Amino acid sequence: MSDGRPRQDPTGGGQVRVLSTKDVAGLIDPDESIAAIEAALSEPQAMSRQSLSRRRLYVPVPGKENEYYWHNNMVGAFVAGNTLAVRLDVSRARVFEQRQEFPGDFTGLVLLYDLEKSQPYAIVHDHGLSPIRVAATSALATRELAASDAAVLGIIGTGEQAVAHALAHAAVMPGLTTVLYYSRSPENRMRAARRTQEETGVAAEPVSSVEELMERSHVLVAATNATEPVFDGRSLRPGQHVVTIVSSDGFVQRREVDDHCFGKADVIVVNSKEQIVADQQRHFSGPLAARKIDQVLELTDVLSGEVKGRTDDSQISLYDNNVGLGVQFAAVGALAYQKARAAGIGVDLPVELFVTRKAPDEFYAP
Amino acid sequence: MSDGRPRQDPTGGGQVRVLSTKDVAGLIDPDESIAAIEAALSEPQAMSRQSLSRRRLYVPVPGKENEYYWHNNMVGAFVAGNTLAVRLDVSRARVFEQRQEFPGDFTGLVLLYDLEKSQPYAIVHDHGLSPIRVAATSALATRELAASDAAVLGIIGTGEQAVAHALAHAAVMPGLTTVLYYSRSPENRMRAARRTQEETGVAAEPVSSVEELMERSHVLVAATNATEPVFDGRSLRPGQHVVTIVSSDGFVQRREVDDHCFGKADVIVVNSKEQIVADQQRHFSGPLAARKIDQVLELTDVLSGEVKGRTDDSQISLYDNNVGLGVQFAAVGALAYQKARAAGIGVDLPVELFVTRKAPDEFYAP
Repeated sequence: MSDGRPRQDPTGGGQVRVLSTKDVAGLIDPDESIAAIEAALSEPQAMSRQSLSRRRLYVPVPGKENEYYWHNNMVGAFVAGNTLAVRLDVSRARVFEQRQEFPGDFTGLVLLYDLEKSQPYAIVHDHGLSPIRVAATSALATRELAASDAAVLGIIGTGEQAVAHALAHAAVMPGLTTVLYYSRSPENRMRAARRTQEETGVAAEPVSSVEELMERSHVLVAATNATEPVFDGRSLRPGQHVVTIVSSDGFVQRREVDDHCFGKADVIVVNSKEQIVADQQRHFSGPLAARKIDQVLELTDVLSGEVKGRTDDSQISLYDNNVGLGVQFAAVGALAYQKARAAGIGVDLPVELFVTRKAPDEFYAP
Repeated sequence: MSDGRPRQDPTGGGQVRVLSTKDVAGLIDPDESIAAIEAALSEPQAMSRQSLSRRRLYVPVPGKENEYYWHNNMVGAFVAGNTLAVRLDVSRARVFEQRQEFPGDFTGLVLLYDLEKSQPYAIVHDHGLSPIRVAATSALATRELAASDAAVLGIIGTGEQAVAHALAHAAVMPGLTTVLYYSRSPENRMRAARRTQEETGVAAEPVSSVEELMERSHVLVAATNATEPVFDGRSLRPGQHVVTIVSSDGFVQRREVDDHCFGKADVIVVNSKEQIVADQQRHFSGPLAARKIDQVLELTDVLSGEVKGRTDDSQISLYDNNVGLGVQFAAVGALAYQKARAAGIGVDLPVELFVTRKAPDEFYAP
């Protein structure tokens, strides 16, 4: 069993391992990614001195309306794992009516550095890591926040993130009996249900309306690519726990849950309160949400026990996975590297290409 | 002659070129770097939509007082040059009494991306680029701000940055007759003067006191690694132009010029006003400096002619190169790549290691 830490000297071989999306596929089990994320988020300074909050750049493409050169940048350290992660995405983005697309090729890389040696040890394509770390973080929140007798998991959405959330939740919900899927496409919900049942052994079925999903679920996960709310928060019932993973980046305003959902929630937990402000996340500015902003908690404080999440099985709780964190990439990136190394997967580059060796008295002013 | 733009299709070869500090040494002439920086800083959105301001992370090293895992992150696009630059430094930092050192090996890389293709085309070690872009930017400011008859350049400091400033200033001061150097070490000032005279053909000499330097200079450049002011601003005379390159990053407070210098300056120009606030740069919070904060101009606005810098040869002007900019690295990085390519310098890696190829209908949610 791995604890998310690379071996003492990951760069001992003098190599930087490159791992593609395909290399990483299926490499990490949900219980491993959850343990790694928990270890990283449990470091007391994970969200403060060990992270730089996510920033994005939208550079207008000359002569093309609604098109941007796009960059995504986040940084985080996992000190016990001796890893600094820098996630860098570069893509074309097309934005219209608050929906965004990333046409064409994409360069999404997580650079993993050995903290002790100040040198890189791996470069991992981020599409293999991203669904894993989002789902593992949501699952940790559900473990802390869902009612103790939660048995039915309802998922809105049927894409990679939706299925990754089902697999990760199966690892943290000991009483889980049923997974339900709803999306607009009957084929997609059937396919997601089948895959989930095969991979978890838990009964999974498609449902034909979001109302039925809400009616039957104890834990309700919105894992879509929506820009507007995907269910009516007025229908939430006591005891339910809601997860949402879509949020705004300050340029594109997106949300999956409505103001009523924020209004009815007794407990609201996010990844980062700083990011709500930095990105002016619109879903917090609605009249019902705004009333609750002072009560919003951060996941790291819930995990550490510094603050209480749910205090009663009849409360409604809401976890808003409101931004990606560099520390998530440090945790799952280190794990992917270890597992790939053990399995002999990936391509090695000489670390000497990247490091500046200094004499002890040499001085640099960066 | 290069205009700072890579050829239409820099990644056409399917390679990512790695350039070491040694590869870049001597590759770029001051007039070329100044032209490239000017082109990049002249793009109207260079400082807003095309940049992410510099951020640094200081992660405490467990059990070691005053030691940090350190990361430096800046991003900027040079659209006409079809280049996005991401500068990433990772090092150990030791901080005591507002002085910082970077012991041991260092990983400082500038990743250059082809904007049109959303893929990397070069990775350049930043120590070869950094003095070039700082000095080129200072020289641009001097060209705009110094009195028209400035003939004597006085430099405090004798390191890489100091000499780079002499070479770059020689390219923008048509009336330059003399370069003076002062530092605490007579050997160092003699060596810097000799090198400057050899490389520029301009008479260069060491002086034995900072007072003599101030007395004789029309343009006064502080290019040191100081943490406290290196001259007495009260001695500034009408017509002098001052350049300072040391500033605070929000964690370590450093300055080369005193409050009197800010107080006496009729014109104050910086790289970024945003960074003064973001990093709470202390040298702007002194009583004399604070009185002037509303008058502070940004270099890009001076270059574009949107605001006037010096309006009279008797004014005192101050240029504070108060933060590094990603766009500087986009400009000089693209230039270094072109020149290295033309000279057959560097190591190529396959671009396929780094890019995620997508089918036209494939969707990613980063």
